Amino acid sequence: MAATDTDTSTDSLGPLLEPASIAIIGASNDPTRIGGRPLLYTRDAGFAGPIYPVNPNRDSVQGLPSFASIGEVPGPVDTAIIAVPAPAVVETTEACAAAGVKAVIIFSAGFAEMGDDGRRHQTAIGQIARSTGMRIVGPNCLGVYNANHGFFGTFTSTFEAGQPRPGRVGLVSQSGAYGSHLSLLATLRGIGIRFWVTTGNECDVDVAETIGWFADHPDVSVIVAYAEGIRDRDRLFASLALAHERRKPVIFQKVGRTEVGADAVRSHTASMAGSDAIYDGVFRQFGVYRATNTEEMLDIAYTASFGIFPASRRVGLMSISGGVGVQMADEAVERGLDVAPMSDAAQAKLKAALPFAAPRNPVDITAHAFNDPGLVGTNLDVMLAEGTYDSIVAFFTYVAAAKAMVGPISDALRAAKTAYPRCLLVLSIVGPPDVITRYEEAGCPVFEDPTRAVRAVDALAHFGDVFARPLPDMTASGPPVVPLPAAPIGEAVAKALLVEAGLRVVDERACATTDAAVAAATTLGFPVALKIASSEIPHKTDIGGVMLGLDSPEEVAQAFADVTGRARMAHPEARLDGVLVSRMVTGGVETIMGVRYDPTFGPVVMFGLGGIFVEVLEDVAFRVAPFDTAEAHRMMRELRGFPLLDGVRGRPRGDLDATASALAALSRFAAAHADGLDSAELNPVVVLPEGQGVVALDALVVPKG
Amino acid sequence: MAATDTDTSTDSLGPLLEPASIAIIGASNDPTRIGGRPLLYTRDAGFAGPIYPVNPNRDSVQGLPSFASIGEVPGPVDTAIIAVPAPAVVETTEACAAAGVKAVIIFSAGFAEMGDDGRRHQTAIGQIARSTGMRIVGPNCLGVYNANHGFFGTFTSTFEAGQPRPGRVGLVSQSGAYGSHLSLLATLRGIGIRFWVTTGNECDVDVAETIGWFADHPDVSVIVAYAEGIRDRDRLFASLALAHERRKPVIFQKVGRTEVGADAVRSHTASMAGSDAIYDGVFRQFGVYRATNTEEMLDIAYTASFGIFPASRRVGLMSISGGVGVQMADEAVERGLDVAPMSDAAQAKLKAALPFAAPRNPVDITAHAFNDPGLVGTNLDVMLAEGTYDSIVAFFTYVAAAKAMVGPISDALRAAKTAYPRCLLVLSIVGPPDVITRYEEAGCPVFEDPTRAVRAVDALAHFGDVFARPLPDMTASGPPVVPLPAAPIGEAVAKALLVEAGLRVVDERACATTDAAVAAATTLGFPVALKIASSEIPHKTDIGGVMLGLDSPEEVAQAFADVTGRARMAHPEARLDGVLVSRMVTGGVETIMGVRYDPTFGPVVMFGLGGIFVEVLEDVAFRVAPFDTAEAHRMMRELRGFPLLDGVRGRPRGDLDATASALAALSRFAAAHADGLDSAELNPVVVLPEGQGVVALDALVVPKG
Repeated sequence: MAATDTDTSTDSLGPLLEPASIAIIGASNDPTRIGGRPLLYTRDAGFAGPIYPVNPNRDSVQGLPSFASIGEVPGPVDTAIIAVPAPAVVETTEACAAAGVKAVIIFSAGFAEMGDDGRRHQTAIGQIARSTGMRIVGPNCLGVYNANHGFFGTFTSTFEAGQPRPGRVGLVSQSGAYGSHLSLLATLRGIGIRFWVTTGNECDVDVAETIGWFADHPDVSVIVAYAEGIRDRDRLFASLALAHERRKPVIFQKVGRTEVGADAVRSHTASMAGSDAIYDGVFRQFGVYRATNTEEMLDIAYTASFGIFPASRRVGLMSISGGVGVQMADEAVERGLDVAPMSDAAQAKLKAALPFAAPRNPVDITAHAFNDPGLVGTNLDVMLAEGTYDSIVAFFTYVAAAKAMVGPISDALRAAKTAYPRCLLVLSIVGPPDVITRYEEAGCPVFEDPTRAVRAVDALAHFGDVFARPLPDMTASGPPVVPLPAAPIGEAVAKALLVEAGLRVVDERACATTDAAVAAATTLGFPVALKIASSEIPHKTDIGGVMLGLDSPEEVAQAFADVTGRARMAHPEARLDGVLVSRMVTGGVETIMGVRYDPTFGPVVMFGLGGIFVEVLEDVAFRVAPFDTAEAHRMMRELRGFPLLDGVRGRPRGDLDATASALAALSRFAAAHADGLDSAELNPVVVLPEGQGVVALDALVVPKG
Repeated sequence: MAATDTDTSTDSLGPLLEPASIAIIGASNDPTRIGGRPLLYTRDAGFAGPIYPVNPNRDSVQGLPSFASIGEVPGPVDTAIIAVPAPAVVETTEACAAAGVKAVIIFSAGFAEMGDDGRRHQTAIGQIARSTGMRIVGPNCLGVYNANHGFFGTFTSTFEAGQPRPGRVGLVSQSGAYGSHLSLLATLRGIGIRFWVTTGNECDVDVAETIGWFADHPDVSVIVAYAEGIRDRDRLFASLALAHERRKPVIFQKVGRTEVGADAVRSHTASMAGSDAIYDGVFRQFGVYRATNTEEMLDIAYTASFGIFPASRRVGLMSISGGVGVQMADEAVERGLDVAPMSDAAQAKLKAALPFAAPRNPVDITAHAFNDPGLVGTNLDVMLAEGTYDSIVAFFTYVAAAKAMVGPISDALRAAKTAYPRCLLVLSIVGPPDVITRYEEAGCPVFEDPTRAVRAVDALAHFGDVFARPLPDMTASGPPVVPLPAAPIGEAVAKALLVEAGLRVVDERACATTDAAVAAATTLGFPVALKIASSEIPHKTDIGGVMLGLDSPEEVAQAFADVTGRARMAHPEARLDGVLVSRMVTGGVETIMGVRYDPTFGPVVMFGLGGIFVEVLEDVAFRVAPFDTAEAHRMMRELRGFPLLDGVRGRPRGDLDATASALAALSRFAAAHADGLDSAELNPVVVLPEGQGVVALDALVVPKG
């Protein structure tokens, strides 16, 4: 990780989220008002430290003595809540800083979301944080809470429907309303949220830093985040790296998926996909699970709370209904889980226990579990001992909630958990809350819907995989490099730069004359390709400046005249540097590799298959540069068209290792030139059959303007 | 619809599902046993007619007089439940038929699912139904119920957790355990199931027939079906056509999606995708919504129960959280809904009502709805009056459940429903059941999750579209045709057959000699293609039997010698009929059209784009033959690669009308030859630019062996 001046140290948010004392500026005597709620909630929750209401118009607020200003508060204040009208916020914030307050939470709206004036005021507030070190949440946020600490610095109205229960989830949301919705649903679902932070307009504290603080906090095991966008790449990466180091799953919902292409930039590669696809790449690179809706986010957080991350994607499926077994298998296969069959010997054992069971996987124990509850234990034992599954999903529906069944089934599950503590055992059961709790206490997450149970296994196996490997090494950018040449960079120079960076380009010769071209072709061997050479003509194919498959000296001579003539016609002012002659590359699969500079994430590498894959299907993968070959291998496998590289339907398998090496090399090049490089495109890059490498036929390198 | 001998008349299942009297054979005095439960449930539910327990070992069962056999029951019996051990089932069923019972439900397991003996017994039972007209449900099923009639002919144990409430959903499930799971979840969700049928091994009554009976029943508005497979195509089609005619949505879950390719057959086309993809085609063709999991199925059924099927895919999104607005927009766009912006004038009105609202669509009314509940009504009015949306999804979360808000918001919704009764208004609210009920009573389906609300709108807009158009005309197979020639059918004959069927094939000449080939090429104009002609060589490209781009008489002469020589080498025994010479077709997009004979659905037509689309991406669409051009247009648009035909990124748009006509013509050909045709493949079929038609370059027609 590149060094950053961002403070992500342990106690950065400590005073904010674990305050010893709080003040509420704009405190209201009416506990249903914005300035009244945090006082009510926090006192009701038994907050241990002093609470100082600040309200110049009252002597007491909700029974506590009130102070005229933050400066008159008698003791030190860790966190002050600011619930005053927007015009008074800057002044109030300054007063807090002057009074030595360590953190403020600004509820007030009317800032950047309201136009230029508001934006100016918000900048002024952010400046206070930077100049004084006082931390600021908001403005325009719904506040924060710490469920174990009795600190509810928020005016959300969701506590009417249920008080948050303590737990090990840290939840951070840019949106206050959506954060409240999530908090409420989590509470109703029985998921305990330890810390809850809404960051609003993020003039100082942001989602990225909060993730890092959660990652470092011993009481948080699972991190849930919601954002519309990220401001600080380095802070995000540092936080995600810390979460990974501590084996804490991060489940992230980032909206705006369908804005793909909104921030299209000039070059062809970049215009293929907008920045949302880059978020996808970043999340994958850092092992984050990207959730697309509330239900998925909470499902995964709930399951992750059990702390078991399967070592493999092998999943055993058990069902009392054959049809549901198939349904779970469909879902598992579509999610890339391995529904591996049991061995013949293991199947024979299950058949012996229940002659009409389907013992392969999915295992159907049929409704006879009703008559013989011991079947559950017998089947589990065989599946765990001989199926070597790292996860099991069992569909018992209402059967497991029947009075006579709860004891035997939960005993069987408990025994299985004791014998195989590293196996993730997920249940699909419909029953009353007390029954569900009993199964949860046996160590098993419980879902009503069997396919949601399978989805949760997929997500946790993802974390199992991610935690078992290092994150990509973001420091591998190599030694400082010489700056790029000034724009425009011609094709030959671009290729030389890439060769120096470790990429292979087609063997070609710059030829200023017809005779030189014919001689080069004869040396390289026919057939050859011939292309106009000029740094001032970017899209050579479009003007007929490229001719392929030239079989003889005569054809080469004619082609020299043709492309030169066409170039002169199309670009009379352009400087021509003769032609490039290269040996034709035949066979292989055409791909595109590119670099673009993303305003948020800096240099990113794009990979896709040529032709319709990129153009029609937008089938491309992104990664932030730099990354290693292992990451490049994962990147390639994300493409829907990957089977083409992997040798589908009798085609030869492409040289995947060479492709990965090329992508990693390109990423190091991109990172090393992060300051000077606008974009690059290698198109096509031909992936030759295994062992024969990859070769770029054309290259464009565009320095920053 | 072709005539069928299947009885789908109104009263086919009347005695079964609305019996005036019932008998329970194997009735148990223990109300927790299989033979005891239906008696308990039905009596408790206040069934109005006589209930006759049959049990030779007791004088009374659960307080009712018991009879020694069905023959001794004193009155007529509409439906008898058979809950006796498998070995006694055949005899018992015969006794029922002899006693004039109109329908039986066989709970007993141990039939086709248990091997050959069981299968024989099941066949014998089915025979009783066919020879006597007595209807039979099962064996190996969990029975049926009619919630309004007090008839609970089932031993499911789910009623412990909640008695089904009356409603307008008809639910049929092959699987008893899964059917019970669905019934329970529907009950917990507040969805009223009117009729519930589990069909088990389906020796007589099946899912298809039950759908038809539901379609015809005045008390059923929504049909939910679960099956692992369908037995009788004509019965299914008739039932689905009836449901469509009565504007009753059918929501179908068919498992086994990932068995794609399992039943691969000989020809190339057929091996591309297995029969599950054909189910997809059938469901689309008949306007069925295919659900992939329980939650989706019940969500759609719940929303459909409100009976509003939007006239268009235009959806307005309203939210108190900007982030959730984006989230709903993402989901809507990905599902192909039209998140059309409001007019500038309408946006100005919303801005006037709330200056910091985002008025475009999604409309963000922010948390200020709290301070001014009238905002909901104001915004709804403007969105409905000026947005011309046929659906609106509104995210209010817990805000709409706050005591002060329920009245104003539900009043606003009620007013909107009165003014715009054809608009589907779906809410996302988290609140206690009594609050949710109030909003439902205002005519609005309520979801906790906003993206699930959007998915429901997508499904209902699907039904809106389907109900507004006729189902494809399955009778358009035309006059009886002459039988196909005997196998093997050569390429020239195959093409002639297809031309006669209305398809266009490349203009080509059969030439027996070199001179004839050269003359033909000269007449057609260069460049030409030349191909070996032989009905005994199916894959001509593989042996080098096809040569393209021949530019001169000399090249044609040489090619004649080449392909003839290669054909003789590869197939020394094959009869050669000279060569086919055709004008080269250039430009356009290569597609594949095919016909296969599906064991369940008969002749089906397949369409895909050439090359990697079919081979790597399995991007193909199926329809049962015959169908019209409107259906063919929908079929084409299902392909992920459709943008290629539609003219993406500057490519010319293909001749879509000609493509649709070709597919419809092929479907009529397939239907007309349903008895004699094994498969056909037109590969490639070049779709030329708009107005230039489509042309098949190669064709294979394989009659049934």
